[in-house]
Amino acid sequence: MAEQVLKRHELGANRQQRVWQSIVKEAKSATVREPDMASLFHSTVLNHSSFRDSISFFLSSILADTNVPSMTIQSIFHQALLSEPMIIDQMLDDLLAHYNRDPACNETIIPLLYFKGYHAIQSYRIAHWLWLQGRHQLALYLRHLMHEHFDVDIHPAAVLGSGIMLDHATGLVVGETAVIGDDVSILHDVTLGGSGNQNGKRHPRVGSGVLISAGAKLLGNITVGDCAKIGAGSVVLVDVPAHSTVAGVPARIVSKSRNKVPAMEMDQSLGGKSRE
Amino acid sequence: MAEQVLKRHELGANRQQRVWQSIVKEAKSATVREPDMASLFHSTVLNHSSFRDSISFFLSSILADTNVPSMTIQSIFHQALLSEPMIIDQMLDDLLAHYNRDPACNETIIPLLYFKGYHAIQSYRIAHWLWLQGRHQLALYLRHLMHEHFDVDIHPAAVLGSGIMLDHATGLVVGETAVIGDDVSILHDVTLGGSGNQNGKRHPRVGSGVLISAGAKLLGNITVGDCAKIGAGSVVLVDVPAHSTVAGVPARIVSKSRNKVPAMEMDQSLGGKSRE
Amino acid sequence: MAEQVLKRHELGANRQQRVWQSIVKEAKSATVREPDMASLFHSTVLNHSSFRDSISFFLSSILADTNVPSMTIQSIFHQALLSEPMIIDQMLDDLLAHYNRDPACNETIIPLLYFKGYHAIQSYRIAHWLWLQGRHQLALYLRHLMHEHFDVDIHPAAVLGSGIMLDHATGLVVGETAVIGDDVSILHDVTLGGSGNQNGKRHPRVGSGVLISAGAKLLGNITVGDCAKIGAGSVVLVDVPAHSTVAGVPARIVSKSRNKVPAMEMDQSLGGKSRE
Amino acid sequence: MAEQVLKRHELGANRQQRVWQSIVKEAKSATVREPDMASLFHSTVLNHSSFRDSISFFLSSILADTNVPSMTIQSIFHQALLSEPMIIDQMLDDLLAHYNRDPACNETIIPLLYFKGYHAIQSYRIAHWLWLQGRHQLALYLRHLMHEHFDVDIHPAAVLGSGIMLDHATGLVVGETAVIGDDVSILHDVTLGGSGNQNGKRHPRVGSGVLISAGAKLLGNITVGDCAKIGAGSVVLVDVPAHSTVAGVPARIVSKSRNKVPAMEMDQSLGGKSRE
Amino acid sequence: MAEQVLKRHELGANRQQRVWQSIVKEAKSATVREPDMASLFHSTVLNHSSFRDSISFFLSSILADTNVPSMTIQSIFHQALLSEPMIIDQMLDDLLAHYNRDPACNETIIPLLYFKGYHAIQSYRIAHWLWLQGRHQLALYLRHLMHEHFDVDIHPAAVLGSGIMLDHATGLVVGETAVIGDDVSILHDVTLGGSGNQNGKRHPRVGSGVLISAGAKLLGNITVGDCAKIGAGSVVLVDVPAHSTVAGVPARIVSKSRNKVPAMEMDQSLGGKSRE
Amino acid sequence: MAEQVLKRHELGANRQQRVWQSIVKEAKSATVREPDMASLFHSTVLNHSSFRDSISFFLSSILADTNVPSMTIQSIFHQALLSEPMIIDQMLDDLLAHYNRDPACNETIIPLLYFKGYHAIQSYRIAHWLWLQGRHQLALYLRHLMHEHFDVDIHPAAVLGSGIMLDHATGLVVGETAVIGDDVSILHDVTLGGSGNQNGKRHPRVGSGVLISAGAKLLGNITVGDCAKIGAGSVVLVDVPAHSTVAGVPARIVSKSRNKVPAMEMDQSLGGKSRE
Repeated sequence: MAEQVLKRHELGANRQQRVWQSIVKEAKSATVREPDMASLFHSTVLNHSSFRDSISFFLSSILADTNVPSMTIQSIFHQALLSEPMIIDQMLDDLLAHYNRDPACNETIIPLLYFKGYHAIQSYRIAHWLWLQGRHQLALYLRHLMHEHFDVDIHPAAVLGSGIMLDHATGLVVGETAVIGDDVSILHDVTLGGSGNQNGKRHPRVGSGVLISAGAKLLGNITVGDCAKIGAGSVVLVDVPAHSTVAGVPARIVSKSRNKVPAMEMDQSLGGKSRE
Repeated sequence: MAEQVLKRHELGANRQQRVWQSIVKEAKSATVREPDMASLFHSTVLNHSSFRDSISFFLSSILADTNVPSMTIQSIFHQALLSEPMIIDQMLDDLLAHYNRDPACNETIIPLLYFKGYHAIQSYRIAHWLWLQGRHQLALYLRHLMHEHFDVDIHPAAVLGSGIMLDHATGLVVGETAVIGDDVSILHDVTLGGSGNQNGKRHPRVGSGVLISAGAKLLGNITVGDCAKIGAGSVVLVDVPAHSTVAGVPARIVSKSRNKVPAMEMDQSLGGKSRE
Repeated sequence: MAEQVLKRHELGANRQQRVWQSIVKEAKSATVREPDMASLFHSTVLNHSSFRDSISFFLSSILADTNVPSMTIQSIFHQALLSEPMIIDQMLDDLLAHYNRDPACNETIIPLLYFKGYHAIQSYRIAHWLWLQGRHQLALYLRHLMHEHFDVDIHPAAVLGSGIMLDHATGLVVGETAVIGDDVSILHDVTLGGSGNQNGKRHPRVGSGVLISAGAKLLGNITVGDCAKIGAGSVVLVDVPAHSTVAGVPARIVSKSRNKVPAMEMDQSLGGKSRE
Repeated sequence: MAEQVLKRHELGANRQQRVWQSIVKEAKSATVREPDMASLFHSTVLNHSSFRDSISFFLSSILADTNVPSMTIQSIFHQALLSEPMIIDQMLDDLLAHYNRDPACNETIIPLLYFKGYHAIQSYRIAHWLWLQGRHQLALYLRHLMHEHFDVDIHPAAVLGSGIMLDHATGLVVGETAVIGDDVSILHDVTLGGSGNQNGKRHPRVGSGVLISAGAKLLGNITVGDCAKIGAGSVVLVDVPAHSTVAGVPARIVSKSRNKVPAMEMDQSLGGKSRE
Repeated sequence: MAEQVLKRHELGANRQQRVWQSIVKEAKSATVREPDMASLFHSTVLNHSSFRDSISFFLSSILADTNVPSMTIQSIFHQALLSEPMIIDQMLDDLLAHYNRDPACNETIIPLLYFKGYHAIQSYRIAHWLWLQGRHQLALYLRHLMHEHFDVDIHPAAVLGSGIMLDHATGLVVGETAVIGDDVSILHDVTLGGSGNQNGKRHPRVGSGVLISAGAKLLGNITVGDCAKIGAGSVVLVDVPAHSTVAGVPARIVSKSRNKVPAMEMDQSLGGKSRE
Repeated sequence: MAEQVLKRHELGANRQQRVWQSIVKEAKSATVREPDMASLFHSTVLNHSSFRDSISFFLSSILADTNVPSMTIQSIFHQALLSEPMIIDQMLDDLLAHYNRDPACNETIIPLLYFKGYHAIQSYRIAHWLWLQGRHQLALYLRHLMHEHFDVDIHPAAVLGSGIMLDHATGLVVGETAVIGDDVSILHDVTLGGSGNQNGKRHPRVGSGVLISAGAKLLGNITVGDCAKIGAGSVVLVDVPAHSTVAGVPARIVSKSRNKVPAMEMDQSLGGKSRE
């Protein structure tokens, strides 16, 4: 795996605290520059004492409706984050994934407050925890809220790694038996869909370091190897080897590249020279 | 037409009552298992005495805004369901379509409460009734609410059959003169779009038993025959014969299969052996 | 540029007033025909004395949330429209673009009240003004609201011309350094995306009079010439000459037509005879 | 009983229709004069086809909260008004009571839209109907909503006649076993309170035509005769004969007047000459 | 102190649990009888595992506004009840005070859900705790919310004992330096007001077992002895001896009674025989 | 008139600016001490550049409902304050009245944010302006909102001077033809009520410097002279001479005092020695 992938581990043991201090600093600075948003920065960031509290508060306030109020959702977030502390690490990995890979994202506060892809994946993480506890109805309801608010439909039984970036996000569909590795970047309008109406494994398995470009459809019980790149608008119906780039309808291999991590490079353009 | 298609007629004359009893039973059971959701189950299911009341109440509460309050929308639902009882039958067919075809949907309550595709198509059914009454402004407003809430844009003048499954739903567009038969399954990100800026028939006609896979675009005044399958990401610009599978940009016939109803099988993978 | 493109200038100096009178007249007529919607017509149209007030009021009420209330957003709209009067002209051009090009849109009030594509682009226009003032945080928040409500993600730094029609709109993504000319029609599910994680120009430049069909992905620092047509579901990775039609994955030139303005004709079907 | 008391019967059999026509006419006229309120007039009056629908809609929208939504309350109003049509007559009597007795009330629409005393007593009428059906919990909840919104606490078991005017209303308390006749006028801050913590009759019985001035406290199982007047700030602990005026702490008879109906005259000043 | 006063201690050490079981039992029974209210009973009672959680949830949801959301208020309730467990005992004493003394209150759930006097005093208890922590701004804001919602204005610096019943409640005012003992019953429209604009003790001190009838005004730095009764509408400007009944404007002693606890008897009628 | 009365003029020509600076300073300091309230302080004070903007924003947000949104009410506030700048002076006088006379009010921000009496009188000031413009329906609606939110019922045609303090406020009623001078202090539960059901002057005229204690009822076309004091719970039916104190039911003169301004002293205790 390439060097860049590991960047997210650089910050060390007290990473959560350092990210949180960065967010607080940015919020304070922005409050001075843009007083019209001071209420937003206070209620979502400055009123809280940790990243954990901030994200629980903010997502609960977005997801709540009259049937399941924000106080109940916040309490579910607290239960999940208390019983499975690893989720916070994943939430930080995802946040840094956006910060490191998106050139239009130059502050750590930006994914937290403004990116619905980031909001969606964190909602999934809680729904997934509920699913593992056997609380399927509540997991499905949280998915429904995520789907209606963020236009992202990740089944709570799907298994996603850490350091996931959902760029633009609208229209993403990830099916019940899909598996996604670490450090993956997924553009909007992507489908990891199923084949057939039977139970059992029927959705893709995606390795680490993969980039899935806008509008790609990956269908059926196929495997995408580590550091592969899926071209925009591709329809992928068969396995994709590691380190290869595929494109087209149906998708075919268009290039190979040993030394790159497509998820970090975010280049949807099908690999420069190797394409001519 | 294949045997499975007819499944929805099996339940007989008192089908509405039997489905409703199933939903009530599931809601009661879920209330015990998940007390945090008891308010949801009560306000949407257990407080009501019929499927008709339940769905009118729930969709009205989702669709309402400050300009057209939930009480007004509920009253429109009641008018529609009273003057055209067939709509309830269609709503049940659609619900059973999800229940029978989606392996991740193992309870009748799930489409009712959690699937925005199901919510969208029922909103269309009321908007379509309004359109037929000549109440175009209100039909357009209901479509606007459906579009903003569920990210599904079905023109109220389009004509849809019964037993429609909208899986994942986000991004579906169905144009003004489109026609869709019975027992059709449509994935997310599908377009039945127009050609040209003139009035008159300019959108596709889709037969019964058809499966339209994720991301497919069907454009212009074309006809898709019964039990055809449209591959994921296809762009279909010409007629598709019955019982054939098409794929690609532009789409071409890739296989034929006499004995299957693709809408029931939900297999987006382009038909097993016939594809080699 | 073709004749039709100029239509929007026909109305003359007092165009804003004439459009406003048309909207008011339609609202009055609709109020009589559909009393259930009278509150909507009054609060959004009839209570106001100008197009400027009406659109500021209505979009503020849609976009507001508990963190940034409608009164604050309305005040930002007023600041923008006061300091840059050209924005109102663009808003009128966009409204007439829908009215002139969409056969299902036979009243000037329809885009204003019911089309989320129209709502999205006007939200972008204000976010863009904020971005030019250096108020990036507020611009990003407005984009976030636009993205969550309308499922359209236009970066506030992107530069869009006048007379833009966003048809159906769901899923549109326009990146930070993209540029779009005047009188362009864009269907839903379209991407003007980037290549790579570096700063600098990395998104498409689109000329005037262009039609971009549903699901097309245009990626990287490429140029699309005036009056080009991009086929549905295409993936465009290289420059497109003016007056040419491209289609496919990856897209290739399929026809040329000197005398047409595809944005006005709205024909996604790849150009009749020239396609055989 | 005096002549004025009967005024409310003058309008004849189709009174409801005539009052409703008057309200509609006033709403139309006001809509023209005050466009900022057009939405209010439409949603509460002009969108409806009868007084019954209008008042059910408006009060439901005021009383609703997240636990019992407006649609449920409106449905309870409809049940009550359908099974006991007399309530509509009482609601009209009360409306005309305000119109006829309050010199600051010169339109029939004013009590309907602006007087919380009128809103409170109509809420009581529905709560009372629920109480008579044995639906005590819902009756108590409706009372709680009435108490929190209008600051009026009438126990749903109390029995109130027709043609009641609650002027200013804040602070009124009417206990469980209180009885009030027809054509009574009650100012704000009045108490018909109990004595002791035992069950059984323990609150006042008030005759017809009575005026109870601001701040008066009537306590215990006492009787107030027809056409009596209770002075402002009085504390009444013993029976009050018909046609007499009482005042003071504790209250004593200060005058008698055979020919007047104090409820109609609304004179809290203790009776002119007779007081010297 | 009389026997009845002590009733609230009868339930023993696990009183909180027994009261909570009673409330849950009543809620379950009511849910069956009145399905329209099932959502209310679930969200406020049945979804919770303790009286503490239930009351924190319910009052937070009532008091919240857009500036200080329910999640923040609930968190303040939790802080208070954790750091000062005695408050829960007082909340139970107050609940039993209503249950034991109000003949119209025959279930323990009734004060919890329907009595705004009960809601007001519990809000004061949290505001008082904040005041003692030196968090004056938040205490004042909570008072403001209590004042606007329940029409009860208790200064957070005032000191109230346990077992307080606020019957009907509207209009109660309790000033900054007021002190109230245990087992006191206070009707609506009562004032414990100040004299002068100087700092220092300037409001009444009220003993235990006292009944203050409707509309009574107690003004200045005076003392009301244990088990005194204040007549309705009285204006009390001087000390009131223990076990005495006062009435009138200004109030004078009208009777004495050694063996009664007026707060328990709830008899505002000035004491039977002793009054003749 | 006594010296204290004039205090409010001390601050000189740029008083508005100095009061505003004081409020901003207090808000900043409180934000640091109480982060849970930072959103409140920002949205109501720190986001604004003048007292005028702050109070317009805050009251609009409190008074708005679904029928007349906050943006419309804020626009009415702006119209009023622009066309009649004197209203801002009165709003400042009223704020300083609370600050100077209430010992429990030691910051200028406290009346602005926490006192519903202050909120009520400022709502009246706008309703009165509307009344003078002949916009009676809107004035009545604003009164209705004031009445429902703050439990204060001041008729918009009544004429109130400057420097009015409404302490506790709940239950205040001021009739259509009432007139109140400058620098008056009014406690809660006070009535300036009418006599009779005829048009014409029928409510009290109250001079300057007067104190009206809690629960007092002033009824009919009477005159209360400058610097009079009305005792708590009094019922006043005849004229009250200047500089005299009245009390009782009905009220009688109990003392006289040339050199005091009761409104400033806030002593409801009926005047020390002079009462023995």
